[in-house]
Amino acid sequence: MTLLVQKFGGTSVGSVERIEQVANRVIESQRAGHQIVVVVSAMSGETNRLLALAKQVDDEPTPRELDVLLSTGEQVTIALLCMAIHKRGFEARSYTGSQVQIVTDDAHTKARIQNIDVERIRTDLNHNRIVVVAGFQGVDGNGNITTLGRGGSDTTAVALAAALQAAECQIYTDVDGVYTTDPRVEPHARRLSHITFEEMLEMASQGSKVLQFRAVEFAGKYDVNLRVLSSFEEGPGTLITYDEEDSMEQPLVSGIAFNRDEAKITLVGIPDTPGMAYKVLGPVGESNIEVDMIIQNVGEDGTTDFTFTVHRNDFKRVLEMMQTLGKELGAQQVTGDDSIVKIALVGVGMRSHAGIASTMFEALAREGINIRMISTSEIKIAIVIDEKYLELAVRTLHAAFGLEQQD
Amino acid sequence: MTLLVQKFGGTSVGSVERIEQVANRVIESQRAGHQIVVVVSAMSGETNRLLALAKQVDDEPTPRELDVLLSTGEQVTIALLCMAIHKRGFEARSYTGSQVQIVTDDAHTKARIQNIDVERIRTDLNHNRIVVVAGFQGVDGNGNITTLGRGGSDTTAVALAAALQAAECQIYTDVDGVYTTDPRVEPHARRLSHITFEEMLEMASQGSKVLQFRAVEFAGKYDVNLRVLSSFEEGPGTLITYDEEDSMEQPLVSGIAFNRDEAKITLVGIPDTPGMAYKVLGPVGESNIEVDMIIQNVGEDGTTDFTFTVHRNDFKRVLEMMQTLGKELGAQQVTGDDSIVKIALVGVGMRSHAGIASTMFEALAREGINIRMISTSEIKIAIVIDEKYLELAVRTLHAAFGLEQQD
Repeated sequence: MTLLVQKFGGTSVGSVERIEQVANRVIESQRAGHQIVVVVSAMSGETNRLLALAKQVDDEPTPRELDVLLSTGEQVTIALLCMAIHKRGFEARSYTGSQVQIVTDDAHTKARIQNIDVERIRTDLNHNRIVVVAGFQGVDGNGNITTLGRGGSDTTAVALAAALQAAECQIYTDVDGVYTTDPRVEPHARRLSHITFEEMLEMASQGSKVLQFRAVEFAGKYDVNLRVLSSFEEGPGTLITYDEEDSMEQPLVSGIAFNRDEAKITLVGIPDTPGMAYKVLGPVGESNIEVDMIIQNVGEDGTTDFTFTVHRNDFKRVLEMMQTLGKELGAQQVTGDDSIVKIALVGVGMRSHAGIASTMFEALAREGINIRMISTSEIKIAIVIDEKYLELAVRTLHAAFGLEQQD
Repeated sequence: MTLLVQKFGGTSVGSVERIEQVANRVIESQRAGHQIVVVVSAMSGETNRLLALAKQVDDEPTPRELDVLLSTGEQVTIALLCMAIHKRGFEARSYTGSQVQIVTDDAHTKARIQNIDVERIRTDLNHNRIVVVAGFQGVDGNGNITTLGRGGSDTTAVALAAALQAAECQIYTDVDGVYTTDPRVEPHARRLSHITFEEMLEMASQGSKVLQFRAVEFAGKYDVNLRVLSSFEEGPGTLITYDEEDSMEQPLVSGIAFNRDEAKITLVGIPDTPGMAYKVLGPVGESNIEVDMIIQNVGEDGTTDFTFTVHRNDFKRVLEMMQTLGKELGAQQVTGDDSIVKIALVGVGMRSHAGIASTMFEALAREGINIRMISTSEIKIAIVIDEKYLELAVRTLHAAFGLEQQD
């Protein structure tokens, strides 16, 4: 008897009818001989409804209370799903994050899972119960309700799969797998039958909406087999695996990720002294704001330009922070731009092949697209361009690397 | 510095605007030099919305899961209220029933409070925080979420006031106090400046909607000063006090309570043997169904008729139960009626005055109202009549005892 963790997102539980479909699917899996732990999100629209209520009260609601509020969304879904399973004559038991004891740190609205107590779940599974756990939420060491941030339900599912040593963690979603790029931007995008954790990590961190970054990170770290598949259609989805040995057969580029939610901030002409990067980014990290790309040009006159990108939501706050900090540090100027996007080519095949970057830059140059920032890793080349070029750039690169033709 | 527990019901927190008003009022009380613990219900309509969702899934939803679902209602309110308090520059901290550790038994949907851990609340109060607790909910010994049944937020407030030895437990509601009877039925009904616990108990148990029965019971038992007052208007409300010594000044009748939600069931011609009442009512109690009036007539031929009333919601279930049980016990017939109502005259003054019952029966007889059942206690005379006579009977009795004229 294998144990499966199945996660259903907001769209998959968006109405009572859909919750009933999830009940059917989950029961089917149990009848096929599996032990089933289900992780669910809030019904689609619910989190936004709650957020709107909070914003009506306060534009910047207290994080602790926002978590108390938002965590009700998943709590509603777990109860309804268990009712639907019971109605069909099967046993189920729901758990909130604090009931399972999904213990997190105390970073409200973006907490990180530290520990999961699976004893209760094991007991239920041994009694043939389907266990239904609220995604996205946990509890800190002092019993305060925390949430993991948007998309956190994926992380909950993977963390549970790791803690329970599940055979597979299946992420049911409204798409039928991971694509070479977003099909809404490039209609010729193709579903990948598999992708490596490393690639998926780069895809997720670059803004591919299918899976949450931390979920993939977790899955890779704890050796969880992760599969993305559709809640609405049958199909194998995309399996996220370890890097295969036979890299000869691997494509150069597996996919193109992009992220519209970027903003960049530059401190122009700050003294080029040791520790400057820390002085600039320390306060940002302490505010729990994630910094994405960081670029520093070597200066000539003892000063340098320091540029980094953050989520667009954090732009205003970070810009204000930098305007104050810039003065203290002696910057000549602080500039910002929140109409930029990031595009990344991702592929483990890049490791053994040169020339990807030049093909990329050439293709973009041909279309007159100016590259504002470049950052690379072993399996990724990321660029920042003006927002208006996003679609053109994605389609150009998709074609340039023949992504629609491979299989 | 005195400690006040203030409870705001669903209508008082029915919108963001009203939640903001509650925030203002609570802060005002704190600024007046009190320590404040606030108990809130779900926003009005929310519990019904959640219940409707559950009924869409299953006509008889699993009680455990229903509690998980319904408890989200108050959780939303505590978060929003704390946000509103923070926005005004004051400190507040929200707690769900399981966070405070309002420990209950495991009778889902109608659990009873067993214990409250107030340590956390004390710490917050000592830090000048306003503590906001979700009403209506608790947690059983195994960490399962429970609810106390409709109106349970009053019970939460009183139980907290008792555990914290609060100076007063203030129940803010949409009426400005306890009335001689429901003003919607008798426009001449008058607000009582005070009422005794015993009277209030009888009023509450007879269906007066102002306060929940168990809340008053709790308040009396643990010596909590209870005050009912309006969330929308200024005013002293009604103080619920201990029986005053000087009973000379007390009115004969303080109020008239009534309850539309009654149904009666009769087992006709069951053997008149010892233990029969237990055999009939034991199974009802085990099903956690509350029985209200019980009447047994002395029989002549070794058999007797046994009648009792239950809440109308439980009628069908209990009737079926009795039809089976009646056969086993040898009843000639089992009959039921769910179009009855109960009316009760309540007053501690009755103790020292005779003739109340005859005045009552005479007034009703004059209007041609047939009395179906009678039950009395030291401070109450309750009758069951046909539903259609409810309004007429209440107005007739209100006038007969001069309730509109006293003060």
